[in-house]
Amino acid sequence: MILSALLTSVGINLGLCFLFFTLYSVLRKQPWNSAVYAPRQIGDEEEEEDGFFNFDMLLPSAGWVRRAWQVSEDELLCRSGLDAVVFIRIFVFSSRVFAIGGAIGIFVLLPVNYLGNQLSIDFYDLPNKNLETFSISNVNDGSNWLWVHFSAAYIFTGVVCYLLYYEYNHISLRRIASFHSSPPQPRHYTIVVRGIPSSEGRSFSEAVQAFFTDNHPSTYLSHMVVHRTSKIRSLIKDAEKLYRTLARAKSQSSQQINKKDRLLGLFQGRDTDVSHYEQKLEDLERNVRTEQHSLTEIHQEVPAAFVSFKSRFGAAVALHMQQGLDPTEWLTEEAPEPRDIHWSSFSSSFMKRWISRIVVVVACVALTILFLIPVVLVQGLANLEQLETWFPFLKGILDLTIVSQIVTGYLPSLILQLFLYLVPPVMLMLSSMEGYLSSSSTEKSACTKVLWFTIWNIFFANVLSGSAFYQVNIFLEPKNIPKILAEAVPGQATFFISYVVTSGWTKLSSEISQLTSLLWSYVTGVFSSNDDEEIEVPKLPYHSEIPRILFFGLLGTTYFFLAPLILPFLLIYFCIGYITFRNQLLNVYEPKYETNGRFWPIVHGSTIFSLILMHVIAIGIFGLKKLPLASTLTVPLPILTLLFNEYCRRRFVPLFQYYPTESIVKKDKEDQNRPNMAEFYDKLVTAYRDPALLPVQYARNNSSLSSPLLQSQV
Amino acid sequence: MILSALLTSVGINLGLCFLFFTLYSVLRKQPWNSAVYAPRQIGDEEEEEDGFFNFDMLLPSAGWVRRAWQVSEDELLCRSGLDAVVFIRIFVFSSRVFAIGGAIGIFVLLPVNYLGNQLSIDFYDLPNKNLETFSISNVNDGSNWLWVHFSAAYIFTGVVCYLLYYEYNHISLRRIASFHSSPPQPRHYTIVVRGIPSSEGRSFSEAVQAFFTDNHPSTYLSHMVVHRTSKIRSLIKDAEKLYRTLARAKSQSSQQINKKDRLLGLFQGRDTDVSHYEQKLEDLERNVRTEQHSLTEIHQEVPAAFVSFKSRFGAAVALHMQQGLDPTEWLTEEAPEPRDIHWSSFSSSFMKRWISRIVVVVACVALTILFLIPVVLVQGLANLEQLETWFPFLKGILDLTIVSQIVTGYLPSLILQLFLYLVPPVMLMLSSMEGYLSSSSTEKSACTKVLWFTIWNIFFANVLSGSAFYQVNIFLEPKNIPKILAEAVPGQATFFISYVVTSGWTKLSSEISQLTSLLWSYVTGVFSSNDDEEIEVPKLPYHSEIPRILFFGLLGTTYFFLAPLILPFLLIYFCIGYITFRNQLLNVYEPKYETNGRFWPIVHGSTIFSLILMHVIAIGIFGLKKLPLASTLTVPLPILTLLFNEYCRRRFVPLFQYYPTESIVKKDKEDQNRPNMAEFYDKLVTAYRDPALLPVQYARNNSSLSSPLLQSQV
Repeated sequence: MILSALLTSVGINLGLCFLFFTLYSVLRKQPWNSAVYAPRQIGDEEEEEDGFFNFDMLLPSAGWVRRAWQVSEDELLCRSGLDAVVFIRIFVFSSRVFAIGGAIGIFVLLPVNYLGNQLSIDFYDLPNKNLETFSISNVNDGSNWLWVHFSAAYIFTGVVCYLLYYEYNHISLRRIASFHSSPPQPRHYTIVVRGIPSSEGRSFSEAVQAFFTDNHPSTYLSHMVVHRTSKIRSLIKDAEKLYRTLARAKSQSSQQINKKDRLLGLFQGRDTDVSHYEQKLEDLERNVRTEQHSLTEIHQEVPAAFVSFKSRFGAAVALHMQQGLDPTEWLTEEAPEPRDIHWSSFSSSFMKRWISRIVVVVACVALTILFLIPVVLVQGLANLEQLETWFPFLKGILDLTIVSQIVTGYLPSLILQLFLYLVPPVMLMLSSMEGYLSSSSTEKSACTKVLWFTIWNIFFANVLSGSAFYQVNIFLEPKNIPKILAEAVPGQATFFISYVVTSGWTKLSSEISQLTSLLWSYVTGVFSSNDDEEIEVPKLPYHSEIPRILFFGLLGTTYFFLAPLILPFLLIYFCIGYITFRNQLLNVYEPKYETNGRFWPIVHGSTIFSLILMHVIAIGIFGLKKLPLASTLTVPLPILTLLFNEYCRRRFVPLFQYYPTESIVKKDKEDQNRPNMAEFYDKLVTAYRDPALLPVQYARNNSSLSSPLLQSQV
Repeated sequence: MILSALLTSVGINLGLCFLFFTLYSVLRKQPWNSAVYAPRQIGDEEEEEDGFFNFDMLLPSAGWVRRAWQVSEDELLCRSGLDAVVFIRIFVFSSRVFAIGGAIGIFVLLPVNYLGNQLSIDFYDLPNKNLETFSISNVNDGSNWLWVHFSAAYIFTGVVCYLLYYEYNHISLRRIASFHSSPPQPRHYTIVVRGIPSSEGRSFSEAVQAFFTDNHPSTYLSHMVVHRTSKIRSLIKDAEKLYRTLARAKSQSSQQINKKDRLLGLFQGRDTDVSHYEQKLEDLERNVRTEQHSLTEIHQEVPAAFVSFKSRFGAAVALHMQQGLDPTEWLTEEAPEPRDIHWSSFSSSFMKRWISRIVVVVACVALTILFLIPVVLVQGLANLEQLETWFPFLKGILDLTIVSQIVTGYLPSLILQLFLYLVPPVMLMLSSMEGYLSSSSTEKSACTKVLWFTIWNIFFANVLSGSAFYQVNIFLEPKNIPKILAEAVPGQATFFISYVVTSGWTKLSSEISQLTSLLWSYVTGVFSSNDDEEIEVPKLPYHSEIPRILFFGLLGTTYFFLAPLILPFLLIYFCIGYITFRNQLLNVYEPKYETNGRFWPIVHGSTIFSLILMHVIAIGIFGLKKLPLASTLTVPLPILTLLFNEYCRRRFVPLFQYYPTESIVKKDKEDQNRPNMAEFYDKLVTAYRDPALLPVQYARNNSSLSSPLLQSQV
């Protein structure tokens, strides 16, 4: 790719970005769009300043940028929780890394590369310059200038490690602080016990009661055995759907057409339907109640229970120690928040869970490797000549300069993108099959899966660009890896620069403008008329967003000394991303559950992996460039990085798993003087009741009973 | 090697074994040898039936075999602890495995191998038969008879896994049972705390006191901060040495020559020495006291302490939970038995320990790999022609049939053996540098190191027999491993058969006859005259014995279907070993400390590794023998084995790490009614006092004060 093609691509995308951001700044001021652009405000305030037309509303403005910028981290923590802060810290961390890396890259490495003449291309024709001129490929073989790259690799690694340590420390302190400042929460007083051993003539509930009064007599408070409620859950789901239909039918028949914005009156005048639905709903409710009753009668218990304790310390003790003689029985786990529970994963046994976890790992690996086939196809599309061979009738169009530049610069990553949209939901499904008890753990696991998937299928597949089998083969001969990567990676620099520009920037514009939600809200707004219909505030999908950002970090790290031209584009991405996501977290996304910063170790691990990958490539490159001494002297770098990682693992990871005794005891002591603890204990006893077992009543009472039901489906 | 050479080797070793066992049965009856053959009896009973000569004492007898056989496992447990039982269970397990494996091998596989004609050697000349005729190499390529080997591999793996599960279960139950039946022990009430944070103006002792009264107010009992006592320890060592010299000088000057068995009176008539020594000893003692006093004055504390609790449960809670906010501070560990403590490893910090652990790992890997050079040399010696080239003057002797047979059958493994004697002490030293707090952990770690060392340096080095570098290289190309192993392993079958016969059987005879100790006792008996000198009861060196036995297990497992001829010899080894070591554990070795069966997971892991190695070789062999279907169908076998291992890890390993809450609470409840608990608590407070800080007094009091001193040097 030549420089002018890249500039075309950058130009197009910059224009699109600007367009979308301008569009957003106008659209967000329109009150009827607030369900899309500020659903949290509506949820929080329940007031709409309707009607008041103002000319200012049609002018684009940058006020939202200022507001998003000004919000402090504490405020963000308060509004969106620690997970949101961690998410934003990824941008902060990456911006810092690539600001420093970019400065080194552009002002030191780029000139060195450009002044080399390995590729012996005309020095002056800048626009038609091959982008490779700016990469390490242009430095002469055996040139001493390569020591600049060598030093840059060491300095960059040092900077990244320092920043990693700083962030890990910062976030772990935040995590402890947020524990200290939180009011008593049921999850800190409760543990999940699984693998309750069955004995004849005794229910699981009795077994739990006996075991914990025996072994934790002074701290045990109560327990709640889990039941098989999948049938009830599906009945409730039906009832809820019916209830909504009924509500809609009712409002239609009573209000008649009184809205201007309703264009088609398709659902009018169905008075008879209402009574029919009411009858049906009552039947369903009766069914649910019968089922609920039969559950407690026939003891359809699952060998799992929530056990609550009188203090956080009591719960922590039971959590940390192996309880029963058989380590596969009486397994203890942290209790998730009540709203975070994944009720359907309770029914599986130790053995079943274990096997399904293995199956999922196998499925995941298979998916990751087999996915290569469409990617290789995409790789072919990126090649202009290939395209002309396949579709000869396009030859005329493709020969136009502008079209050819769009095709090489834009199309390939767009198609890749479409394929990749399917991956996060699939990985989330696989993770939920693993039987995690909470949605947050499922999402965390899916996040890791998506990350590896992305790294393998975008980075390695594009770099190695052979058949799937060939690529797996490479990794069976570890000693050739540096050489193979060093040969292949620099060649893909231009592809990844255009990937950052197209995929990265485009994603941010589509994130801020929320085009799909906007269109969807118009469509539903036209076809349905119910004003009361609740606006569902969405949740930021960490499992698809975090891997994407981390992948850009990986690109920046690996290409830092190979092709520093990528760094400014990345820096722009991270800076715009920072503003965009702060805005979205404040206005659009609401946390549905809280892992208290547990996504950070994934970020740390991914960054360490990126560094090691960079080192491996450096070792290979210096070998290829006939500077074997530099190659040998780079070997300590990955080793030192791994030692640093190991140190961080010991220093910080325990803090992300459990809270230390010191904090727990301190919190417990503070709570002894809290006035409303008795009330809290009363709530604690029922906090972990399965929502499917709560009494249902739609038919008579139409007020919003649906909130507990929504939880049951999370 | 031909059959007759093997038979010669077997004959020689069988003769030697018989000789040594006969010798033992005579020598052990001589009362003056009881310090070598039954030091435990002396220690236990303190009575010697001296003088009574009996003609029966000169006749060999097999009574000791009967006695060793008849002792029940409970009795052994009672006399020598659970570690001894675990050690004997290795023999029981291996005998069972190779009894079944041997039956399959000899009655099914051997005839199949022998009837093949791949090697096309004359069918009838049995004595000159190459041993390869009995191995899988003789089965025709692509023959369907190979399916017999295939089935045998599956059946054998199944049998081994079943027996592994059975043993793991048996030993874990024993472990729990021995915990349940034990009286209150200080180590169950105590934990070690390391990384106590330092704060100005406060001693570590005060910090510990404050922290644990804060965080464990209801269970905390007392603590004992560790001091820097290396200087005092060396002073005490000197004092002790001096004290012994003094005692000897005293007894010599007072008693004069009154013993017939003293041949040389070298140390007589040094009356003046006695007062000189006494003076010196008193000076030393004063020094020790001054040092001890200064320690408590100047607060030469180490940031580590023993913290005792009022109950086992309290100690377990503090042990399992992360205590401080910083995970590198307030680190808790299980307290070793007081006699098991390695006092000198307390002084190192978290960082220093961590780095020294890494250094030791590197040193260990380097040693393991570089050791290959002498082994390759030994491999050359095993080759008769090579020997003749190097030492041409030996040609005449080497051409004699009997000499050549001895050289090929016996010499190589003997030389190898000499080299290997140095390894266990070196590995023990490396492990002690890792900074384990107890001698038992150090020994356990050394055991693993020696095991890997043995497997790499005896098995792989002999099998691959190239340069050291070449061999490391192979493992960088994992997909070629099965093929390379399949080509190389069967060829070394004869070497390993002779290795079992020479190294294995010889070791057992030398174990039972204790020749070196016997000679040493004669030598010291001649030169020293002190009757009061304590007989030091030795400890079974698990770190060198267990890897040896496990290595024979590995040989048997890998060669099971390749060359089943090895199995009978192994079975004999394990059966004799069973009797020998039971006898030795009852009469000779005394446990110095108790890990409560923690060596078993090493045995389990090693067996699993052997199985996997066998499977890998099987995959390669079936490929080489042109039966690719069998090769493919063998692939699930290692996967299933690893899954089985993973299941065992979850099912049993936690029991070998800590005791479950259920047991701990039960024990605590039982002890509430124990009458002498107050007395126990009093003892508990001082149980973990550094022996170097105990008051010393040799000069006046000559009674055996040396026992606490001996502990300080362990």
